[in-house]
Amino acid sequence: MSSYFGHTFRISTWGESHGGGIGVVIDGCPPRLEISEEDIQADLDRRRPGQSHLTTQRKEADAAEILSGVFEGRTLGTPIAILVRNTDAQPAAYDHLKDLYRPSHADFTYQEKYGIRNWEGGGRSSARETIGRVAAGAVARKLLNVANNIEVLAWVSQVHTIKSDVDASTVTLEQIEADPTRCPDAEAAAKMTFAIEEARKNGDSLGGIVTCVARGVPVGLGEPVFDRLEADLAKGMLSLPAVKGFDIGSGFDAVEMTGKTHNDPFVAGDSGPVTATNNSGGVQGGISNGADVIFRVAFKPTATISSSQETVDMDNNPVELSAKGRHDPCVLPRAVPLVESMTLLVLADHWLRQQALDVLDG
Amino acid sequence: MSSYFGHTFRISTWGESHGGGIGVVIDGCPPRLEISEEDIQADLDRRRPGQSHLTTQRKEADAAEILSGVFEGRTLGTPIAILVRNTDAQPAAYDHLKDLYRPSHADFTYQEKYGIRNWEGGGRSSARETIGRVAAGAVARKLLNVANNIEVLAWVSQVHTIKSDVDASTVTLEQIEADPTRCPDAEAAAKMTFAIEEARKNGDSLGGIVTCVARGVPVGLGEPVFDRLEADLAKGMLSLPAVKGFDIGSGFDAVEMTGKTHNDPFVAGDSGPVTATNNSGGVQGGISNGADVIFRVAFKPTATISSSQETVDMDNNPVELSAKGRHDPCVLPRAVPLVESMTLLVLADHWLRQQALDVLDG
Amino acid sequence: MSSYFGHTFRISTWGESHGGGIGVVIDGCPPRLEISEEDIQADLDRRRPGQSHLTTQRKEADAAEILSGVFEGRTLGTPIAILVRNTDAQPAAYDHLKDLYRPSHADFTYQEKYGIRNWEGGGRSSARETIGRVAAGAVARKLLNVANNIEVLAWVSQVHTIKSDVDASTVTLEQIEADPTRCPDAEAAAKMTFAIEEARKNGDSLGGIVTCVARGVPVGLGEPVFDRLEADLAKGMLSLPAVKGFDIGSGFDAVEMTGKTHNDPFVAGDSGPVTATNNSGGVQGGISNGADVIFRVAFKPTATISSSQETVDMDNNPVELSAKGRHDPCVLPRAVPLVESMTLLVLADHWLRQQALDVLDG
Amino acid sequence: MSSYFGHTFRISTWGESHGGGIGVVIDGCPPRLEISEEDIQADLDRRRPGQSHLTTQRKEADAAEILSGVFEGRTLGTPIAILVRNTDAQPAAYDHLKDLYRPSHADFTYQEKYGIRNWEGGGRSSARETIGRVAAGAVARKLLNVANNIEVLAWVSQVHTIKSDVDASTVTLEQIEADPTRCPDAEAAAKMTFAIEEARKNGDSLGGIVTCVARGVPVGLGEPVFDRLEADLAKGMLSLPAVKGFDIGSGFDAVEMTGKTHNDPFVAGDSGPVTATNNSGGVQGGISNGADVIFRVAFKPTATISSSQETVDMDNNPVELSAKGRHDPCVLPRAVPLVESMTLLVLADHWLRQQALDVLDG
Repeated sequence: MSSYFGHTFRISTWGESHGGGIGVVIDGCPPRLEISEEDIQADLDRRRPGQSHLTTQRKEADAAEILSGVFEGRTLGTPIAILVRNTDAQPAAYDHLKDLYRPSHADFTYQEKYGIRNWEGGGRSSARETIGRVAAGAVARKLLNVANNIEVLAWVSQVHTIKSDVDASTVTLEQIEADPTRCPDAEAAAKMTFAIEEARKNGDSLGGIVTCVARGVPVGLGEPVFDRLEADLAKGMLSLPAVKGFDIGSGFDAVEMTGKTHNDPFVAGDSGPVTATNNSGGVQGGISNGADVIFRVAFKPTATISSSQETVDMDNNPVELSAKGRHDPCVLPRAVPLVESMTLLVLADHWLRQQALDVLDG
Repeated sequence: MSSYFGHTFRISTWGESHGGGIGVVIDGCPPRLEISEEDIQADLDRRRPGQSHLTTQRKEADAAEILSGVFEGRTLGTPIAILVRNTDAQPAAYDHLKDLYRPSHADFTYQEKYGIRNWEGGGRSSARETIGRVAAGAVARKLLNVANNIEVLAWVSQVHTIKSDVDASTVTLEQIEADPTRCPDAEAAAKMTFAIEEARKNGDSLGGIVTCVARGVPVGLGEPVFDRLEADLAKGMLSLPAVKGFDIGSGFDAVEMTGKTHNDPFVAGDSGPVTATNNSGGVQGGISNGADVIFRVAFKPTATISSSQETVDMDNNPVELSAKGRHDPCVLPRAVPLVESMTLLVLADHWLRQQALDVLDG
Repeated sequence: MSSYFGHTFRISTWGESHGGGIGVVIDGCPPRLEISEEDIQADLDRRRPGQSHLTTQRKEADAAEILSGVFEGRTLGTPIAILVRNTDAQPAAYDHLKDLYRPSHADFTYQEKYGIRNWEGGGRSSARETIGRVAAGAVARKLLNVANNIEVLAWVSQVHTIKSDVDASTVTLEQIEADPTRCPDAEAAAKMTFAIEEARKNGDSLGGIVTCVARGVPVGLGEPVFDRLEADLAKGMLSLPAVKGFDIGSGFDAVEMTGKTHNDPFVAGDSGPVTATNNSGGVQGGISNGADVIFRVAFKPTATISSSQETVDMDNNPVELSAKGRHDPCVLPRAVPLVESMTLLVLADHWLRQQALDVLDG
Repeated sequence: MSSYFGHTFRISTWGESHGGGIGVVIDGCPPRLEISEEDIQADLDRRRPGQSHLTTQRKEADAAEILSGVFEGRTLGTPIAILVRNTDAQPAAYDHLKDLYRPSHADFTYQEKYGIRNWEGGGRSSARETIGRVAAGAVARKLLNVANNIEVLAWVSQVHTIKSDVDASTVTLEQIEADPTRCPDAEAAAKMTFAIEEARKNGDSLGGIVTCVARGVPVGLGEPVFDRLEADLAKGMLSLPAVKGFDIGSGFDAVEMTGKTHNDPFVAGDSGPVTATNNSGGVQGGISNGADVIFRVAFKPTATISSSQETVDMDNNPVELSAKGRHDPCVLPRAVPLVESMTLLVLADHWLRQQALDVLDG
């Protein structure tokens, strides 16, 4: 009852960090879409640890296997099940975490909620769970591309205090992928790299912002009043690990603007009204207005740090925690495909929902 | 398929600004809860226009009628239907809006999505729709109070550039309701009042921030991975009119912090582990941790302003719009009960979901 | 969480027999469908008590008011709320039922499940609840007629031991409505009338069968594996009061047939394959195959009878119950529009779901 | 959007007859339930082909692997994913079916609905899909047993014209499993065996009835008005392959009874009211009343027969079909665990839903 996302294009993820594997079931994908394991692997590889010196050294192939729903290279209209085996499981590496609660992790809340937890690598709360989302996002990406030429791109726009300067309307995947930081502003990227490596040396970690744009979104996606496009995007983003905030268009900056300057005037476009500015972030009244959908996602600094920390154990006794093992001092570069995936899932769902609404003449 | 919110405590709102009325159906409320029309009216009155000189002068009694689901003062366990009639309908007042698209309103997107729209007072996109949410929120408030002594309070923490200083852990309803701004910092409230009146004089409008705290939330609410507590809160908030952003705990400020200072150390509390700080905002891994749940909601400046604006009509021709009629230069004071309501609905839903999860011994 | 039906064309009913009224919210109806209160009233009048000497004399206008979702005679794409006020409420007439459990009614189970019940006229378990379904069914009927020329007709095919002979492929609404029994076989109808009147005189009641056909259903409706067309029809029918069974096509008669005679051979039709026989009842593998969808619904004899009966009260003491007031000795004639409504709701839902599936070329 | 079943205890099945495998994800299972692959395998083995001379000779181990949601022998409260690999895939054996439509199979409707189909062994429409349901049913069985001592048993009560005489209130699993027919009436079982073998020799097939009883169901399960217990049971049963009908309690026999004899009188039981008879089948007003829940499921004769049949191909040309390969002349014995599984899933879901409803004192 908790591991479902979407209404018409609906996914269900499953899996713990350690155990048989991680996976997703996609239900509601239209039939006859060409899709291959390579399509899915391409996005998974962007999420994978060990891509660069900036990210965790945990090495997993994370190879996707399509178990159902695809026949002779095309979707059947039946549920698409995708499995990624866990191959690097080292449960013993987590023995020291079995009885204690890591600060700002989910150990304590899982234990209290469920009365049991898989303490190996975070179990269900591990970011490995997002593999299923990324795999499903790759299918959504294909659908949106074929069906409507919609393009979704995310990038690292800020790490700690280092801000970038990027034109959301023109940035390309190649520019984003050009640097391991996934920041397409080369100057900022260099500073970010330095800051991340400093943080690692200091046993510390950094947060940041991922910005995302969806281009080519047709007018009309989003279902007022509860399933507004921005509401589903917000839910998707806040469901990602380490996310603390979301804003769209002018976002929190709208607070210090006034109506006169914030309102987006309509002007006559070639094929109908368009907005002269985009403080709305491409959404008005919960429905896409044809402008770029653009929003920001705030990530906290990685909770796992190599410096020692005070905490308590399961018996409520103070203990000192010294993190071992592999971790990212900054999750931002690997968060980029996660943000894209949730965006793609939201858009695919709303695009299909609109097909069931726009059925009568007149 | 779009006007539902919640999984186990589920509401469905309906109604346009002009027409027969506005309402809500609450499904899944447990039986035997004492509830009266007065309980509901109390929250509706806080949402109502015309409460003070700061808000729109549209005068509607907005009287709630419980049509079903309550018998002899207690809930039956059957759907609770609540109706508020539209009584101040002046469709003629909207004639000039029939063929044009107001900037940063939903006229254009509704017309494009549905091929039809009720142009009287914004129709379904009017903030009047939130009456149903507030009515349902009042029922959720009663349930959470009886069942778990949970208290939810929101207040205006910022208007334009004017920030307030409020202690979220101790602020009271009385302090919030003491001023028409619903800002419990008297000094800031005075400045806000002045700024709002200046904006009205200038034919302009202001945005701001509502902060919300939920106290007494037990450990364990929230359903990883998609229905995390913060994800459902984010969705609820972004489904409200005029909202542009949401963050929880440290929120966007987390971006410029580092892991060492951001992590919330666990310390031994009297009845189990507690966090020494609350950058997590009361939620870890999507599950409440027993600390105050605290978050912020950013509202844009009201789209309706009395200054004239450039826009286009339905034939894509430029026209000038001069707003008439009643509107708030700043929606923040009236947004407070909306934020509370969505929070109450999320918490009631998750509290009930947890009851169906925590059923086995051991 | 219990008063919803449908996935994309979704309804939510509310209301008790006595109280403010009865209603329904329809969510997901496409915009721009012409609909009026008269369209809805026409179906409600077929459900209404007091239509003939055969049915209960409770006289209620049951006048439908559309509260939202319709503007200038067409649907808006927003939720359609429909209200029917309770006008004939005579709570005092039910005083003698307050503390006892009527045999084969829901008094006992509601009391045990909820710990409270509205004992006036059955409360939520009253057949008055079906008003909301019939009102929604009228909207679905309009949609299916406009969109796909689908026609749904039900009739009374059996009362007690009296069976009728009706050709499902040609029967018309006029033939069905020609007799108060809603049995289009005049000879059988006369016998049914006599039997029902005899039952009334004897303080007894009769059951029967309603048969339903949907003509013009396109190939392809139904969503394997759980939301098969026949599965959703079965659920819809068994959710109606007094229903004890459902079968489709050959139904229970299939049990005594063999594969050689039961299989429906495909033959070449003018525009593609068609089945030479219809033991499948128009559905194969959960999906409509273009043939008439035809099924039967078994209704038990009315639980309320005027003869005295043994039962117990809420304190588990034996008491004798003598029914007072108004009731039908046979619900079959009034059950016809209920069966049609649930069928229409299922078909409208599946027709819309198919629109969201059939979106890619090739 | 179609492969989900249940509200709170929710399953999602996936997989085609040929391809990577078949599986299920169970979401909403409470934490700390002891469960093992052996528990699941026990039920799968009852569904497996090749158990006896009566059933198909397709030999598959159908070994269940738990991929997630279980840790150290107990459920985590996270999604439980179960995988069964397809191991006996012989796609070439189906080459002759690639371009034609088998009578009373789903080839035609799948092709028309989706514009594509996996023609190997029926693809998604194969009864292999039910593996996922049976695996999930085994988990539900464990939950209901631990939580409430609920027992669900089904058996073959009729094959073709051969009826059995079984006491539903006392029949045991051992009696049912004693004969390959799964008919606990030895005399009838012998006749059924003979009839099934005759049918096989004649290239024909037989239908029948499975009767199911749930004992120990507490009063109060079922959610009026749409999610009545019998409505969800009916949906579950009609979602199974080859099912043509469902009735509960008196069922279709109620039609020829009268109210005086059909009503179940309440009498004083030791711990509250009980019904003296059980025409209601354990459900009144959609809610369990504490009596045995008892219902029947009608299965058509197997569509696959070895006799040659007339049909058409995908180009609408007449062809003759001679079935090859392995099939059951009567599916009834193997349908028994399917009926049990759907019943267990419905009961587990409703039992959990009731936990979220019965939360307030008084």
